[in-house]
Amino acid sequence: MDSYNHILLAVDCYGQHASVADKARDLADKCQAKLSLIYVVDSLPIIDAGYAVDIPYNLDVTAELMAGAKHRLDALAERLAVDEQNRWLQTGSPKLEIIKVAEQNNVDLIVVGSHGRHGLALLLGSTANGVLHHASCDVLAVRLPND
Amino acid sequence: MDSYNHILLAVDCYGQHASVADKARDLADKCQAKLSLIYVVDSLPIIDAGYAVDIPYNLDVTAELMAGAKHRLDALAERLAVDEQNRWLQTGSPKLEIIKVAEQNNVDLIVVGSHGRHGLALLLGSTANGVLHHASCDVLAVRLPND
Repeated sequence: MDSYNHILLAVDCYGQHASVADKARDLADKCQAKLSLIYVVDSLPIIDAGYAVDIPYNLDVTAELMAGAKHRLDALAERLAVDEQNRWLQTGSPKLEIIKVAEQNNVDLIVVGSHGRHGLALLLGSTANGVLHHASCDVLAVRLPND
Repeated sequence: MDSYNHILLAVDCYGQHASVADKARDLADKCQAKLSLIYVVDSLPIIDAGYAVDIPYNLDVTAELMAGAKHRLDALAERLAVDEQNRWLQTGSPKLEIIKVAEQNNVDLIVVGSHGRHGLALLLGSTANGVLHHASCDVLAVRLPND
């Protein structure tokens, strides 16, 4: 009743620490909850402002990035026994994509790695911070060990 | 191994929602973790700057506030089956006191209620936000239902 039914683990783009993934898996087991995975490839919108400027945008590079991201997501999903239909690979703003997927899939807990004090993330507004402020469900911020 | 051993539930000064407390208790049970409670009566330091000004500081009011706080803390602790030695009643900055108690008692997860988007807490810097940024352990922000 008070526990969680659907836990979404947000994996960051630079190789999530294994400890965060293991905590999410462990918690899902303890709560008998479904575990889903999301991996957001951070991107800025490309605006063609009509200045007749060649935008140095290489589709091959994007495809390569996404393929690499899918490979890493699938490897982690296999290790955590997360089904194919519970894996999301998105591009865009990590904060917004995580929250959108969470809301569309009745997620009641988002697990996200978090940098602690004095980290650059604090200055720039980390994903954990953004998710904490904007998610409509609970958020577990797992402290990354290299802080 | 990946689970939690000591969970600290930070209760806010204006009557915590029962759902936050129940989630902390449930999680502690699932993890077979010790559950502790902290209740910080927010206060500003009183500075006697030597201006020979009477500071309108009423010790009776403080004692009354603390007695009321202790009463509420004890009632919640009884309901959650938290031992006497695992209850902390502090005055000062909620963020700093929560983090201090967590660090001194090997807490590995802090559970705190959190207001969501558009809340005043977001503008002023909520306790959940402060704890998230400064704690050296994991933080579970439980969304308060009235957002």
